[in-house]
Amino acid sequence: MLKYQHIADELENYIEEHKLQQGAKLPVLQDLMRQFNVSKSTVTKALELLEKKGVVFQVRGSGIFVRRHKRNGYISLLSNQGFKKMLEEFQLASKVIALDVRKPTKEAALNLNISIDDDVYYVKRIRFIHGQTLCLEESYFTKSIVTYLNKEIITESIFNYITEGLGLSIGFADTFLHVDKLTAEEAQYLELKEGDPKLYVESIFHLSNGQPFDFSKVTYNYVQSQFFIQAEL
Amino acid sequence: MLKYQHIADELENYIEEHKLQQGAKLPVLQDLMRQFNVSKSTVTKALELLEKKGVVFQVRGSGIFVRRHKRNGYISLLSNQGFKKMLEEFQLASKVIALDVRKPTKEAALNLNISIDDDVYYVKRIRFIHGQTLCLEESYFTKSIVTYLNKEIITESIFNYITEGLGLSIGFADTFLHVDKLTAEEAQYLELKEGDPKLYVESIFHLSNGQPFDFSKVTYNYVQSQFFIQAEL
Repeated sequence: MLKYQHIADELENYIEEHKLQQGAKLPVLQDLMRQFNVSKSTVTKALELLEKKGVVFQVRGSGIFVRRHKRNGYISLLSNQGFKKMLEEFQLASKVIALDVRKPTKEAALNLNISIDDDVYYVKRIRFIHGQTLCLEESYFTKSIVTYLNKEIITESIFNYITEGLGLSIGFADTFLHVDKLTAEEAQYLELKEGDPKLYVESIFHLSNGQPFDFSKVTYNYVQSQFFIQAEL
Repeated sequence: MLKYQHIADELENYIEEHKLQQGAKLPVLQDLMRQFNVSKSTVTKALELLEKKGVVFQVRGSGIFVRRHKRNGYISLLSNQGFKKMLEEFQLASKVIALDVRKPTKEAALNLNISIDDDVYYVKRIRFIHGQTLCLEESYFTKSIVTYLNKEIITESIFNYITEGLGLSIGFADTFLHVDKLTAEEAQYLELKEGDPKLYVESIFHLSNGQPFDFSKVTYNYVQSQFFIQAEL
């Protein structure tokens, strides 16, 4: 972890531990430099990272402020940053239904920008939150990028493994979502009734060089699924 | 509109008109400077804006690439940038059900960080897409910030009016969403059945100085609602 990332983490923890509210002003740059004993550019990079994560916002000429309309029980829809934290906070668990190497569906190949003759890791999991079903998840990983997966890895956080284990740099995601009614199969997995509402989310995750590596299709249990998104406009 | 914003628009139009695909490489900085006859810093700012909007991504040492997994009929869940464009593309229309100045609910006051004795503009609209109901929308605008609204303004784009008419700078939004079943009243407005699925979205919009000015609650017709989100990870 780089120094500015470490300082960003420290600042974020400070905000959480002291329960700083939306709009609370952070110390000025000079004080932060002194406090962490680092250069101006390191503090600036740490603050930029926190701004990108939606933890603070900067008002030119006026300072840096806490941005936090946190609501209990809401899950971040977009970030996989802090997923580990989420795992602990929400006691997330996974049950693996399938893990194998296969040829992609046409749809997966198209979204991953590979040929239908290329190999993918196929992963099907049910995720649980506080012991209740949270979602049914099917993912296709381009095997030439995500070269190895096993059951232990996919029971934990695949993205942690991809960044820390494989040393890849994750860039951005395109996410598509709509609301619909559960099919009989989905309802069975999620322990709900056929025809109950569902949130269906498709995502294409890219490395920071722009290569797509993960196409995933997730069906959420509507009873358990409350999401938040923080966005700049 | 500033020069770099103008150039960002031109580049975005170029990408759309030429139907450039995900991963297509844009001309190098020098060529863009020459083409638009502007400085390096102007081109750089235009590209940063496009990156933030999810139109391009930059790979260090390698260039600038088109980022576009566009799907027909999908609406951007987060941006109100390009809302005008969306109005045209999707033939959005609004029917105003209520517009008045009143005291906020406790919930609205809390989210807008005002007192329950302060005034708000209350707006209730149904939005239509291609002639079908898209959503039922209730919004509370802090009256000391959004000082004036009328029926014509709220039939069109309130956000255009806020930025261009009132000269305010919109900063960021906190969005909370979940899936549920329609109540009888919601079903009637949306011309669906009670118990049908709904996507329920609450947003708190802030000025760039961090002041919240709009608390809105939107219930979407699940048949019409397909959304995309582009995110950096």
